[in-house]
Amino acid sequence: MISFELTILGTSSALPTSKRYPTAHVLNVRERFFLIDCGEGTQIQLRKYGAKYSRINHIFISHLHGDHYYGLIGLLSSYTLLERKNDLHIYAHSELAEILKKQLDLLKTEMKYQIVWHPLNFKRTQTILENNIVKVVSFPLKHRIPCCGFLFTEKPGPLNLNREKIKEHKIPIRELKNIQEGNDFTTPEGMVIKNEELTQGHKKQRSYAYCTDTSFLPHLKDIISDVDLLYHEATYDKRLEKRAGETFHSTAMQAAQLAKLCNAGQLIIGHFSARYKNVSVLLDEAREIFENTIAAEEGMAISIPQVKRGQ
Amino acid sequence: MISFELTILGTSSALPTSKRYPTAHVLNVRERFFLIDCGEGTQIQLRKYGAKYSRINHIFISHLHGDHYYGLIGLLSSYTLLERKNDLHIYAHSELAEILKKQLDLLKTEMKYQIVWHPLNFKRTQTILENNIVKVVSFPLKHRIPCCGFLFTEKPGPLNLNREKIKEHKIPIRELKNIQEGNDFTTPEGMVIKNEELTQGHKKQRSYAYCTDTSFLPHLKDIISDVDLLYHEATYDKRLEKRAGETFHSTAMQAAQLAKLCNAGQLIIGHFSARYKNVSVLLDEAREIFENTIAAEEGMAISIPQVKRGQ
Repeated sequence: MISFELTILGTSSALPTSKRYPTAHVLNVRERFFLIDCGEGTQIQLRKYGAKYSRINHIFISHLHGDHYYGLIGLLSSYTLLERKNDLHIYAHSELAEILKKQLDLLKTEMKYQIVWHPLNFKRTQTILENNIVKVVSFPLKHRIPCCGFLFTEKPGPLNLNREKIKEHKIPIRELKNIQEGNDFTTPEGMVIKNEELTQGHKKQRSYAYCTDTSFLPHLKDIISDVDLLYHEATYDKRLEKRAGETFHSTAMQAAQLAKLCNAGQLIIGHFSARYKNVSVLLDEAREIFENTIAAEEGMAISIPQVKRGQ
Repeated sequence: MISFELTILGTSSALPTSKRYPTAHVLNVRERFFLIDCGEGTQIQLRKYGAKYSRINHIFISHLHGDHYYGLIGLLSSYTLLERKNDLHIYAHSELAEILKKQLDLLKTEMKYQIVWHPLNFKRTQTILENNIVKVVSFPLKHRIPCCGFLFTEKPGPLNLNREKIKEHKIPIRELKNIQEGNDFTTPEGMVIKNEELTQGHKKQRSYAYCTDTSFLPHLKDIISDVDLLYHEATYDKRLEKRAGETFHSTAMQAAQLAKLCNAGQLIIGHFSARYKNVSVLLDEAREIFENTIAAEEGMAISIPQVKRGQ
């Protein structure tokens, strides 16, 4: 199966615990790896959970609270030691390059790769990356400082062939790739067979939305509607809704409400306050509203099958 | 027993592995905790191995390679979140404050504690801290950038009482503390009994020396002679002595040679290159020269008994 798999590297909120690391996720789309946030210890977690981190070419930093980026400089330093050569694209607040400047200056003489900085827009939804693998859209969240969520949607792969028609028209194997790319076929006699006759459309495109740190924002349902996999922070339980509001975080109940509103396939909650030794209270609370919820754990991997739910 | 215990938090050299963290040690001297180097993930390792990190008031950073300080900002940030109030003393290259300035500026509005920066001298041996618990001396090492080692020696505790003499002179219990502090005793009749008669000297002072990152420096034997516990880097095995020389690191054999030269009680080797999945080759090599050698492991704790070896 062609992969679309999320691996959770850290599940803590600002204060890590002896078991929970700060936030970082890695999304594998067809063996390309996208790193989302990079809390302290991310490079070690990447090694621990077998993510091929030399294949990460794009890093997305939601906001500049330390638990979401303090691990970045260590990763960049290790890439330097490993003599990485590929460009590394970092999507983040424009201040991040400035914050890390002195530390990067110390690495620069030995760096063989380029960092390409992409400043995020915290005012409106934007497509920040689009290639033949994935489209990534950033959208504003509501936190104490500027913060973005990200929606990853895989790009259509090759068209599905209509095997019967291929057989009927005796199309040679060497032509199939052209047809899967959307081209018509011309027979040796000069007759054109339209692509629509020979193919049956694409597999549906899988998607993943990442929403942390943020207050509950019901309007996000329009941006991430029908997302296959929604990660939403659930720093607190519903008894602490007031505190969640004051600190611009969400409760597990609110995470589930958004999952329901946007008709998500599955919800993962995370970014747990250190006060919860056991997160079952948060999981139970979310499942009351949105049943298909799981609680993030370090090392957890969630695959989205290629055929979309309900098909 | 009054504690003098070292806990190892990280044993990797510049590149961490899935099991080895970058360098950090914590030394517990009579329930005061001294942090030596602070590689990425140190605050999580501190939690994992139960060190009371709220009791750390002094942090020593040997040099400004990232694997020795990238974890510092995360620790300072967590202290802020935990509303630490005690001053925190950091002994490091004067550039470190500048390197972290922008990140610290982002924390400052919420910080309730002061950081007191103590610039290290990389040209000569210096006493950098002396209180009633410990004396800390820094000494220059030889690395690609300025680097210091540290020698921790516990300060003498109260004097040992001569129980027989105390009984003979019928000295009241309330006076014992004065006598343990070195004072003479005057009887109700006005007779002075000299402190020397009533006490039996101090327990010997335990010591710990920390030497990383560095080339092999035989002259260190004069600075750390008779140290109870010596930590010395052993990045490479002796077949890579040339590479060790070029990169200003040491082999396991060289670490052992220094332990022998300075008549150390015990040697711990660490800062292992990621190429060694198993460090027995390094351990065997060191033990050939200095038998009482152990290989550092994450979470390992080494206690030095209060009565010195050989007594």
